[in-house]
Amino acid sequence: GGPVSRRDGTPVVLLLGGDGIGPEVVEAAAACMQAAARRLGRAIRLEEAPIGGAALEMGLPPLPEPTLRMALDADAVLLGAVGGPRWDGLPGPQRPEAGLLELRRQLGVFANVRPVRMFAGLETTSPLRPEVVAGTDLVVVRELLGGLYYGPRGRRQGPGGPVVFDTLEYDQAQIDRAARFALEMARRRRRSLTLVDKANVLESSRMWRERVQALAPAYPDVAVSFQYVDSCAMRLVREPRAFDVLLCENMFGDILSDEAAVLAGSIGMLPSASLGGRVGLYEPVHGSAPDIAGRGVANPIGAILAGAMLLEWSLGWRDAAACIEAAVARVLADGWRTGDLVPAGGPAPGVSVVGTQALTDRILAAIEQ
Amino acid sequence: GGPVSRRDGTPVVLLLGGDGIGPEVVEAAAACMQAAARRLGRAIRLEEAPIGGAALEMGLPPLPEPTLRMALDADAVLLGAVGGPRWDGLPGPQRPEAGLLELRRQLGVFANVRPVRMFAGLETTSPLRPEVVAGTDLVVVRELLGGLYYGPRGRRQGPGGPVVFDTLEYDQAQIDRAARFALEMARRRRRSLTLVDKANVLESSRMWRERVQALAPAYPDVAVSFQYVDSCAMRLVREPRAFDVLLCENMFGDILSDEAAVLAGSIGMLPSASLGGRVGLYEPVHGSAPDIAGRGVANPIGAILAGAMLLEWSLGWRDAAACIEAAVARVLADGWRTGDLVPAGGPAPGVSVVGTQALTDRILAAIEQ
Ligand SMILES: CC(C)[C@H](C(=O)O)[C@@H](O)C(=O)O
Ligand SMILES: CC(C)[C@H](C(=O)O)[C@@H](O)C(=O)O
Repeated sequence: GGPVSRRDGTPVVLLLGGDGIGPEVVEAAAACMQAAARRLGRAIRLEEAPIGGAALEMGLPPLPEPTLRMALDADAVLLGAVGGPRWDGLPGPQRPEAGLLELRRQLGVFANVRPVRMFAGLETTSPLRPEVVAGTDLVVVRELLGGLYYGPRGRRQGPGGPVVFDTLEYDQAQIDRAARFALEMARRRRRSLTLVDKANVLESSRMWRERVQALAPAYPDVAVSFQYVDSCAMRLVREPRAFDVLLCENMFGDILSDEAAVLAGSIGMLPSASLGGRVGLYEPVHGSAPDIAGRGVANPIGAILAGAMLLEWSLGWRDAAACIEAAVARVLADGWRTGDLVPAGGPAPGVSVVGTQALTDRILAAIEQ
Repeated sequence: GGPVSRRDGTPVVLLLGGDGIGPEVVEAAAACMQAAARRLGRAIRLEEAPIGGAALEMGLPPLPEPTLRMALDADAVLLGAVGGPRWDGLPGPQRPEAGLLELRRQLGVFANVRPVRMFAGLETTSPLRPEVVAGTDLVVVRELLGGLYYGPRGRRQGPGGPVVFDTLEYDQAQIDRAARFALEMARRRRRSLTLVDKANVLESSRMWRERVQALAPAYPDVAVSFQYVDSCAMRLVREPRAFDVLLCENMFGDILSDEAAVLAGSIGMLPSASLGGRVGLYEPVHGSAPDIAGRGVANPIGAILAGAMLLEWSLGWRDAAACIEAAVARVLADGWRTGDLVPAGGPAPGVSVVGTQALTDRILAAIEQ
C-alpha cells in the first residue's frame, strides 16, 4: 500500500482503466510514464484498481472502497474512462459514472483543466478551416465539484403529474476557489480570463460574475471578460484564437470543453487534469468509446499526454513530462496516426495509419532514444 | 386593437424591435413581409410595441402590460432582440431578458424551432471546411418554457456562507408535448430524431429519455437516438450532416442551437420560430449585438427569414414565405453580403459588401419582381 511504497521515495501512481477503451489507453500511458521515468533514472510504482462498469461486473459498487483508499494513498491517479450502454438502464447512484463523480469528490479535485492546442501537422484533421484554427491555444478550467452534478435531485408527484428536478447549486467558497485557480492559471499564460456564464438568466451565474469581479482586482495583470455560454459556444468555433483561459461552472465546462476539444483535430489527442486536492486525477478527455473498445484502434495519445501532465503537476517531473511530449510530437511529425486522425478524404501522403499498440511502441522508442 | 383589425380578415403582426440591432432588422423584415403580401394581393396590419431595455428606458417594465395584450391579440409576433450591457447590473426580474421569458410563457410557446441550413454560395463563410459542412440541414427543437429558465432560484445563507441555486425542473407533460412536437417534425423531414441529454448524470435527463422512449413507438417511421450533450457539442462540429432533428431541454438547446447556427456561416442568417401556443413568436437567432447597433451594418436576413417563417406557419401563406426565401437566395447568389458574411481573407471576387438598408432594398426589389 501507499505508506510502504512511499517510504523509499518511489511515487505511487494508481491506474484506473475503467470501461471501454479506458484499459487499453491507460496501459499505453503507463508504459510511457515508466519509460520516461527510467530514461531519467527514476522509478514509479504502478498500482491498479477497478472503477465504474468494470467494478460493477465484479459485483462491486462503481467506486469500491479499496479503490478509493488506494486513490487517497497514491501520489496521483490516472483514469481511462467510465460508462457504456451496458449499464445505461441502471438508476443514477448505481451507474459507472457515479463512481467517477464520487472519486472526484473524495479527492477534492475542484478544478478540471483541459488544454486545447493545435499540434503541428494535425491542422488537416480539424473540421475547422486551417486559417481559423491555426494557433489555437486555450485552456478550459471547469469547476468540477458543484452545480448540477452534485446538487439535490429527484422526482415528486406534482398537481399535474410527475415532476423531475436537478439543482444547479454553488456556495461562494466553491466559486471563489475555482475563480482564483483560473486567475492564477491566466497569470501563468497570456493573462486573459473569460468567465462563461448565463448571467442574463441564471441567478447562479450572477453570483459567479459578482465573485469574479470581486476577486479580479487582486490580479491586475489579468484581463477579465464575461461571455454568455450560448454566444461562447458559437465563438469557440468562429474564432478559437480569441480565448486564453475559459472559466466555466461544471455543466457548461463539460459541454464547452468537449466542443473545444474537437477543434484540435480529434478528442483522442487531449488530456485533462483534475486538481485542487492533495492527489491529482488525470484522464484523457475522450470517453469510453464502447464502439471501438477491444479492437486495438483507440488513440492512446490523450491518455499518454494525461500521463505527462501527471508527471509534471503531481510529481514535479517537468523533464519527464517534456520527454513524453517531445516523443509524441516526433511520432506525429513522422506521420504515424491512429484512424481518428485521418480526415474524411483519406490519409495525406507520408502518413501511416496504425493501431494503439504500434503507435505506443513508436512513442516508447522515441522516449527511449 | 386586435378584434377590430381582425374583423376585416387582415392578419395582425405585432413588431417588437427591442434592443440593439433589434429595431433595425425588424424594420427590414416588416418591409419584406409587406412586400410579399402585396405581391400576392394580400395585406398585413403591422403594430408596434416596446419590450426589453427599450421598455425600461420608457420607465415601463420589461414586458409592459399593453405589449403583452397586443401580443395575445395578434396573429403572430416578430421580435428583434433584447438585452445589452446598459442593463447588466439590474436584478433578474427587472432585466430586459425577463420581458422575453415572460412573453414566451404568456404565449405558451413551448417549442423553439431553429433550422440550420447551408445557403448555396455561403460555404466559404463557414468556419468549417466546406467538405465537412456542405449539405448540413438540421433543426434544433428546443423546449422553451421549462428547465433552468423557469425553475425556482435564489440565494440563502448556508453553514459555510452564501449559497446560490437555480433549478432544472420539468413536469412530464412539458416533456411529452415537446417530444411529440419534435417527433412530428422529424416525420415531416428525414425521419431521424436525436434526443440530446446528460442521462449519465442528470435525473431530469433520465426522465426525458424515458418519455421519448415511451412516445417513440407511436412514430415507428422515425428513427430515435440518444446522445450526451457534451459529445453532441463535439459531433455538431465534426459531422453536422449526421443530424436531422435535435431535441433539447431549454438550456442545452440554447447552447447547441447557437453552436449549430455558426456552422451555416453567420448567426446573422438564421431565423427561429417559437410555437405551440395560439400565437407564434418569430425571432432572428442572433442577439442584440450592441457593438454594431445603430451603425446600419447588421445582417437583416435572420429577421427577414423569421418573417417568412411567420407568414408560412402562423398565417398559412406558404407562397408568400417562398417568395421571400427565393428573394434572399437570389440576392445572395448575386453576391450581395453584409460584413458578417465576409471571410477573414476578404470578400471573394464578385461579392459586394453593403449595409442593412442596401441589402434589404435588393431583397425588396427581388420580392417585387
Ligand atoms: C462520464 C461523465 C460523468 C463525465 C462528466 O460529465 O463529467 C465526462 O463527460 C467528463 O467530461 O469527464
Ligand atoms: C436573451 C436570452 C434570454 C435568450 C435565451 O437564452 O433564451 C437568447 O439567448 C435566445 O436564445 O433566444
